[in-house]
Parts: sequence; structure tokens; C-alpha cells
Amino acid sequence: MRMINFDLGKITQQVKEHPPLVHHITNYVTANDSANTVLALGGSPVMADELEEVSEMVSIASSLVINVGTLHETTIPSMLIAGRRANELGIPIILDPVGVGATTLRTKVAKELLEKLDFTFIRGNRSEMKSLFGFEGKTRGVDSMVNEEEDFSRIALLMARKHQTTVGITGEVDVISDGERVVELSNGHPRLTKITGSGCMATSIIGVYLGARVPSLEAGILGISRMAIAGELAFEDLGEQAGMESYRIGVMDHLSTLTPEILQKRMKMKEGMIHE
Amino acid sequence: MRMINFDLGKITQQVKEHPPLVHHITNYVTANDSANTVLALGGSPVMADELEEVSEMVSIASSLVINVGTLHETTIPSMLIAGRRANELGIPIILDPVGVGATTLRTKVAKELLEKLDFTFIRGNRSEMKSLFGFEGKTRGVDSMVNEEEDFSRIALLMARKHQTTVGITGEVDVISDGERVVELSNGHPRLTKITGSGCMATSIIGVYLGARVPSLEAGILGISRMAIAGELAFEDLGEQAGMESYRIGVMDHLSTLTPEILQKRMKMKEGMIHE
Amino acid sequence: MRMINFDLGKITQQVKEHPPLVHHITNYVTANDSANTVLALGGSPVMADELEEVSEMVSIASSLVINVGTLHETTIPSMLIAGRRANELGIPIILDPVGVGATTLRTKVAKELLEKLDFTFIRGNRSEMKSLFGFEGKTRGVDSMVNEEEDFSRIALLMARKHQTTVGITGEVDVISDGERVVELSNGHPRLTKITGSGCMATSIIGVYLGARVPSLEAGILGISRMAIAGELAFEDLGEQAGMESYRIGVMDHLSTLTPEILQKRMKMKEGMIHE
Repeated sequence: MRMINFDLGKITQQVKEHPPLVHHITNYVTANDSANTVLALGGSPVMADELEEVSEMVSIASSLVINVGTLHETTIPSMLIAGRRANELGIPIILDPVGVGATTLRTKVAKELLEKLDFTFIRGNRSEMKSLFGFEGKTRGVDSMVNEEEDFSRIALLMARKHQTTVGITGEVDVISDGERVVELSNGHPRLTKITGSGCMATSIIGVYLGARVPSLEAGILGISRMAIAGELAFEDLGEQAGMESYRIGVMDHLSTLTPEILQKRMKMKEGMIHE
Repeated sequence: MRMINFDLGKITQQVKEHPPLVHHITNYVTANDSANTVLALGGSPVMADELEEVSEMVSIASSLVINVGTLHETTIPSMLIAGRRANELGIPIILDPVGVGATTLRTKVAKELLEKLDFTFIRGNRSEMKSLFGFEGKTRGVDSMVNEEEDFSRIALLMARKHQTTVGITGEVDVISDGERVVELSNGHPRLTKITGSGCMATSIIGVYLGARVPSLEAGILGISRMAIAGELAFEDLGEQAGMESYRIGVMDHLSTLTPEILQKRMKMKEGMIHE
Repeated sequence: MRMINFDLGKITQQVKEHPPLVHHITNYVTANDSANTVLALGGSPVMADELEEVSEMVSIASSLVINVGTLHETTIPSMLIAGRRANELGIPIILDPVGVGATTLRTKVAKELLEKLDFTFIRGNRSEMKSLFGFEGKTRGVDSMVNEEEDFSRIALLMARKHQTTVGITGEVDVISDGERVVELSNGHPRLTKITGSGCMATSIIGVYLGARVPSLEAGILGISRMAIAGELAFEDLGEQAGMESYRIGVMDHLSTLTPEILQKRMKMKEGMIHE
């Protein structure tokens, strides 16, 4: 079994030396936040969703982020075309199934993407991931003593195996599995749910790390932790009385200034207990 | 005649207890600001404009915001479909006729929306509302002594009656009428006209209150006052020398931190005098 | 030969007295930043890209910004139609060839725009301008002693003449030529490359000045310098430790507060040396 490698200094160096170009096919609500986040980490963002250019654009990219936040009839084929090309070229793809479960279209499209493309990573919240993977959140038997977090750990593991990908399910506790190992992360702050784009930005950060060839489990841990810890630090700086826009700026500032040392020190990670 | 009810504490509580999901079909310029504003007030935003999903999305929403700021051929039918579904289900809809009057298309589409859908609220500036309702801003007789503000109060009242809706016309003095009562609001700061999205955000706030089942006149008063008073407070904090981006952040911060007590205390509202 | 006119006080007054309406057909990533930048300078932004309305919209505008950052099949004809109408009416147009060179589509579309429309200004970075104009960045002979900056000065001059436009090529040193004069500007800060939209915002500022009927060379100098100096001032305020989002806000603040006096004082401009 592969060990989790956290030479954060080395990873940070990797990003600096080979700034990844992260191609996004994403929504218009948080595109600016995602672009600034990628830049804050030392990467280069490019947003392009026109069918005629996505295949060529992804060919020069280091990774591809597919985010279905504002899905359009015209961008669905773009996602498939760019994804296929990325797969052919071995360029990592990450899926953010924003709002999946809310409408038949989103669920259908996300499932089609899941079926037709090989994703390196899939990051979504519990509700989105339930809808995407088609489970009810209760995979354990009635007499099981396991708690809900373990339930999601198990789901992440099973889904990662089934779809041969790495799965990150975010919630009060975030769980990530590459099908071999499961980790639980318990950083974060409730205020992060009160700003738009915290999920999208976490996904874009994972895109940066994947683009820098960080292994998928580590990329997911780093991306999700970085956002969660930035959320903690911004709250510690500003307190309960601060306005939400100042909080949002504080979070984005910490995304850019967070050092490997602070990240390592604050990260609350434990290996998930899976009863198979 | 129904009295204006301002139990702001109760309304704030209502939003907290039943966070409204506010479905937006809106423009790409201010979508992020609108989303963050809805979150700042305790609601949940969702932006979705693809024809295939809007009917389903609005079905699970508490209210629908239709904003024509960056109108597209593809979003016009989405607005109509989502609006019809909202009407069938009794979900409140608010129209923001951004830029109506500037082009034939915008005026035509806004008039078509007005004709085919039952809006709970329509909020726009004087120029937009003149174009939407097709008046010249001079409904009074030549020998009338009424001033321009009263003119708009009268127009708001007449249009609210004619279209069986609630009308908010923003300007130096904002007027709102539900066809029975007319109120004039004189909060605000000139700097609000120097940041993009202040109108769109006011509309989204009204969407939050409508989604929490606040009556339309009260929802309009609260939405428009909240934006206006946030604009005053940000200016008081920062002064004339501050940069416009800091001012914008100050406004958005106050949108989230404004208490019912401060809102009540600062609100400059008077019942409009209508000579019928 | 026309002299470069820098009565900045007068230009600032011109913008205030006749606030230009700057019509943008632009990308969804930085549209909000561009809109706020135009407002910060005293102009009025309007973003509209629907084919059915762009011709009418541009007719009431003072200038037109065409930015190909997120090019779509549907916006390409809108750019052509709006551009032709602007040309007919003598309304200045500025092109920002974002990402040109990255894909065949962008290069093809930008070249088509260049061929079919008369641009008053074209602003892009070195790589984009190389792709747009189809040169290799090496127009000098092998034994030439001229340095790279002079190379770009020469290119700017030649391209401005060839296409009868004014060309601004941004880089470590920015060069601008109207085909008669060449200027080199050496303000700026490396951090500006770490925020999205600094190029788009510079283009929008040029759009404001062109809309206020400032001659193209001066409009370019002012637009590019204003962004560059705002970037310097924000860094001086905040230092190396600041987060990137705070830096971004600092830049946007200075865009709005920069006085003609400070701009004039800090501007590092020299006339380019061209060996013809």
C-alpha cells in the first residue's frame, strides 16, 4: 500500500518550477474566484468552453477542471470533447458536480461524464455525491455501529474503487479515498458555507496540484485542507463580527499566503477506519 | 387597507429558520455578487438558465429572480418557462429590467415577460421603468403642483394596480407601491451608483425576503432600504478618500451585518401622498 | 509630427463632464472587474453580446471593447456586427486578443476581426500580439545590436502603420505606437501578473479614454500607465506579505483614486528609439 506523502515544501516547489496551466470548463458565477485562486497558488488559469477550441486548449493544459455549476446545452459536448482529449493525452481531469441532484439534467450529465470519461478526481458535497453515485447514504447494515462519517468514508472508498478514481466528499468531516486508503479531514469553518465558490475554489486548487503531477490522494488532501484552513485562519483574524465580504477576502488571502509549515501544522487528518 | 408590518426581528428569524432557495436567471456580470448577497442574508442562491433544467430548478426554489442584464437568445425562453412554472406553483417572481430602454430587444423581452408572467415584484430605475411601462414620466396634468418624486409615486401606484404587482422605482428617492399603499424611501448614497451590481443585489435581497414569504411591499422596502443603508454605512466608515473597491466591499459587508435595529432606526420612509 | 499631449487634468475633466458609455463584448471571467473599473474612472459600462441587440447598443455607446477571453460561437458574429456599426458611426473600438495563439479558433477570429474592422486600439501581451500579427518576435537582422524591448517597439510601429491603428504591447516594458510615435512605459509590478483581469481592466480603461475622445496614443499611455502605477502603489501600501486578494483590491482602489498629479509624477515614459 502506497504511503501518503506530505513533502509540502517539495510540492510547493514543483508548482513554482512548472506552473500548471489549469483549463476550466466552469460556471460564470465563480469563474473569477477560481481564476484568482489558481494564480494565488502559482498556476495559470484558462477558462474556455467553446466546442471548437476546447480540444486544442486542453492539449496544452496541465489539468482540466469540469464544473457543472451553470450547465448549458452548448457546454455539455465541450466537456465531453475536452475530457476525451485529456484522457487520450494522460492529462488529469477533476469533476465538480455542482448542484447534481437538483435537476434531472445535472444528474444525467454528471453520470454521463462519469461513465464516458476517466476522472482523476471527483470532489463534491454529500448531497451531490449521493446523487452522482446513486446511493442513498446508507450502505451499512441496520445493525451496524458505524457512524455517518464512517459511512461516507466507506462510500468514498467503494466509489473510488468502482470508478477507478479518487473521491473527495466534503462535509463537516471531509473524506477522501483513492480506493486504497481513506483519509478524514476535520478542518474548516461554518462560514465557508456562507460564501459562494468555496467548493469551486477547492476544486480548482486540486486542479493546480494535479497539474503539477501531485498524486491524486495527496492533491485532494492538500486542496481540501488548504481551503478549510484558510477558512479557519480568516475567521481567527476577523472574528464573528466581520462582514461576509471581508471574510471572503480573508479566505482568499490565506489561500495565497498559507505556507507548507502552517498547512502541515494545522491539518487535522486521520486515516479512516473501514470495516470491510 | 393593510398596514405595513415591520417586525424585522421576526422576518430575520423567518429567513434563518427557513432559508429560502433563490433561483436566479441573471447576468454574468453581477452573478457572483448576487450569490454572495443571498448567502449574506441567510438564503441559498442557485443560478441556472439552461432551458432543460429551469422548470425543475424553480420547482424546488422559494423564489425566482429574473434579471435581463445580459440577455441571450437562449435565456429568453428559459425566463418564460421558469416564470410560468413559478406562477403555477405560487412561487414569487421578481423582475429586474436591467438596461430596458437601451435596445429594442430588451424592451420587447421585458414587456413580453410582463405580459405573460405574474410578477410579485418589479424593481428598476426610473429610466428602465419608464421604458418597461411605456410612460413618459409625465402622467400629471400641466397645472399640477406635484413634484417629480410624487410623479413616480403615482406611476408606481398606477402600474402596480394595472399589472397587479408590486413596483419599486429606485432613484434619489425610491418609491414602492403594491397598488394600495405607496412608500417613499430616501436612504442611500451617490457612491452606490459607482459600483456595478447595487441594483442587482437589491433585487436579489428582495428575492430572499419574498422567498421567506414576507409580503411584497415589506420585502421591497426591506430590500431597497438594506442596500441603501449599507451604502450609507460604508461611506461613513470609509469616507470620501476611500477607493471604490473598498467601498464596494464595505457595502457588501454591511449587507451581511446590518441588524434589524439599525435598519429600523436609519430607515427614512414616509407614506407617499397620492392625489387621485 | 503630433506631440504627445498630457493635460491629464483636462482629460479627467472631459471624462467627468461627458461620462463615456463603454460597450463591452467580453468574457465572463473578468466582466465584473471591467465594469467596476469603468465606473471607477467615471464612465458607464454596459455588457451586451446578444446578436440581436449589439448593433443598437453600440450606436448609443461612446466606445466598444472587444475582448475574446471566452469566445463563443454566438459572440463571434456579435463582435463583427457591433464592430461594423461602430466603424460606420465613427465610434472607437479597442481589441483585447486574450489568449490568441493558444488555439486556432482564437487566432483565426482575432485575425478576422483585425481584417474586417478598423480598430482604434489593439492591446495585448507579447505572445498574443505575436500570434495576432503573425510575426516571430525577431524582425531585426542577426547582426543587430538592438535589444528585445526595441524589437517590440519596432513591431508596434510597423503593425500600427500596416493596420492603421494604435498598438499597445504589454510586457516588462510596455510599448505603444500610433504609427508615428513610439513610447515605452516601464511602470508596473510583477504581482499584476498574479491577478486575473489586469490586462482586461487596462483595456477597459483605454476604452473609457477613447470614449472621452482622448487621442489613441494618449488613451493607451494613460490606460496602461494607470493600471501599472496602481499596481505599484498597491504593493507599496501592502508589501510582500499581503494576500493576493488584498493586493487585487488595493490595485482596484488605486485605479479609482489615482490623481492626474500622481500619475504624471510616477509615469516612466520615454520615446522609443526606432532605427528605420
